[in-house]
Amino acid sequence: MSVQLSGASRLFPIIGDPIIYVESPASLTRTLTERGHEGVCVPMQVADGDLDAVMAGLTVTGNVDGILVTMPHKHAAFAYCVTSSDRARRLGAVSVIRRNSDGTWHGDMLDGLAFVKAQQDQGADIEGKRALLFGAGGAGSAIALALLDAGVGELVIHDTDEARADAVVELAGEDQRDRVSAGGDDPRGFDLVFNATPLGMDDNDPLPVDTALLESSTFVGDVIAGHGTTGLITAAQAAGCQTATGGHMVEAVQDLMADFLLGARR
Amino acid sequence: MSVQLSGASRLFPIIGDPIIYVESPASLTRTLTERGHEGVCVPMQVADGDLDAVMAGLTVTGNVDGILVTMPHKHAAFAYCVTSSDRARRLGAVSVIRRNSDGTWHGDMLDGLAFVKAQQDQGADIEGKRALLFGAGGAGSAIALALLDAGVGELVIHDTDEARADAVVELAGEDQRDRVSAGGDDPRGFDLVFNATPLGMDDNDPLPVDTALLESSTFVGDVIAGHGTTGLITAAQAAGCQTATGGHMVEAVQDLMADFLLGARR
Repeated sequence: MSVQLSGASRLFPIIGDPIIYVESPASLTRTLTERGHEGVCVPMQVADGDLDAVMAGLTVTGNVDGILVTMPHKHAAFAYCVTSSDRARRLGAVSVIRRNSDGTWHGDMLDGLAFVKAQQDQGADIEGKRALLFGAGGAGSAIALALLDAGVGELVIHDTDEARADAVVELAGEDQRDRVSAGGDDPRGFDLVFNATPLGMDDNDPLPVDTALLESSTFVGDVIAGHGTTGLITAAQAAGCQTATGGHMVEAVQDLMADFLLGARR
Repeated sequence: MSVQLSGASRLFPIIGDPIIYVESPASLTRTLTERGHEGVCVPMQVADGDLDAVMAGLTVTGNVDGILVTMPHKHAAFAYCVTSSDRARRLGAVSVIRRNSDGTWHGDMLDGLAFVKAQQDQGADIEGKRALLFGAGGAGSAIALALLDAGVGELVIHDTDEARADAVVELAGEDQRDRVSAGGDDPRGFDLVFNATPLGMDDNDPLPVDTALLESSTFVGDVIAGHGTTGLITAAQAAGCQTATGGHMVEAVQDLMADFLLGARR
């Protein structure tokens, strides 16, 4: 790709472990360039215990305007944000950070929003529909809140660790109790089936969903990106389902991230 | 320029203050790319007191393979190098740092070598010649040692602060005393006249050399880069002198830096 690199480049590092699979260095840099901004997204391989040192270094680096945060740092990075969005505070996690005018950090969590946008971009209706969400970890929590924000009619959350599913129901809040519950793993009868578990990152992973039970009218979305077409997406397409891949989510998040990262300086 | 940016990119930050004038983000990245290496040089704006925090962060970042060091950090960064070249130890300064196999840092100071190479690339003979060097700071010290290493016949060092010129003579060592001395600023009779002062970074700077005294047989070299053609180079060319600019030094240093930075992993 064609990048404007110079001493005046502004930096938007992405920090994670492992970092080699992330697509933002190419895709966010392209988006920033298309918007006429001399910004570069560079990968930084940062292990769990090293976040403090890296954040301290990036904070004092004058041309670091923002930071993208991926696993395993999304929760820990929240602590470095002096201000944050409502959804970031509810989740206690951030996926993007930008400078406040005094140089401190402001965080937001865009994963859920990007996932919902990817489904819609691929033709899914969310409003008023019944959704079954697999996985109640960091990604699952963010997606659950974003689906409720987008007006989903009913949301069932399944996790092999039932307590985690219950915790996300709790997180959704009192006023959502009629729409969201923890439940089983049978996808029949749902308009939307979503995978937010890590299953699919490894070729030997079992499928998160019993794909023999998928109905062709169900829309299937997956969070897994950077590992080719997942077994879930392949099976869903074979069953005649419409699908959205993790790659679609990565595409959807680029514009959201660029909006957020450049927003502070408009 | 066309850069391969991905999650697998290896990073070679350049740290300095101000950082916006440096050319290495474009030129070193191009050199690395031409050598088939997925490495990216990115600028980092790091103020004097913030070096500790930035070095701590970069040290634990797994895909940072090397660091370029520019003003004002060349002396301070030496302290982070567990091992270093002989010339870096003599100067107490580094311009480039790479990983040892155990992850610690190894430093070298390539400024003097690059300056000498730039003069030679532009047609200057060094061996056995008489040179007058203006400026006995960090750049001047490095250039003085490199000129002696390259076999200069006689080296006179001029600095408005005489003690600094004396210190570089001292640094050159006992066995060089017949070739190097501190002296005046009259360029007449010298084969080579070099500027290693900061004069020329600002358009309003006075010239470091009385250019009315320049002889057309004298070769004139300047360290100042990134600020257009300096007054010294313009005047020297008008006097019929052959010249080498700071831009030529920046060109010369790219290959030296790439050799050094990739050397550890061959």
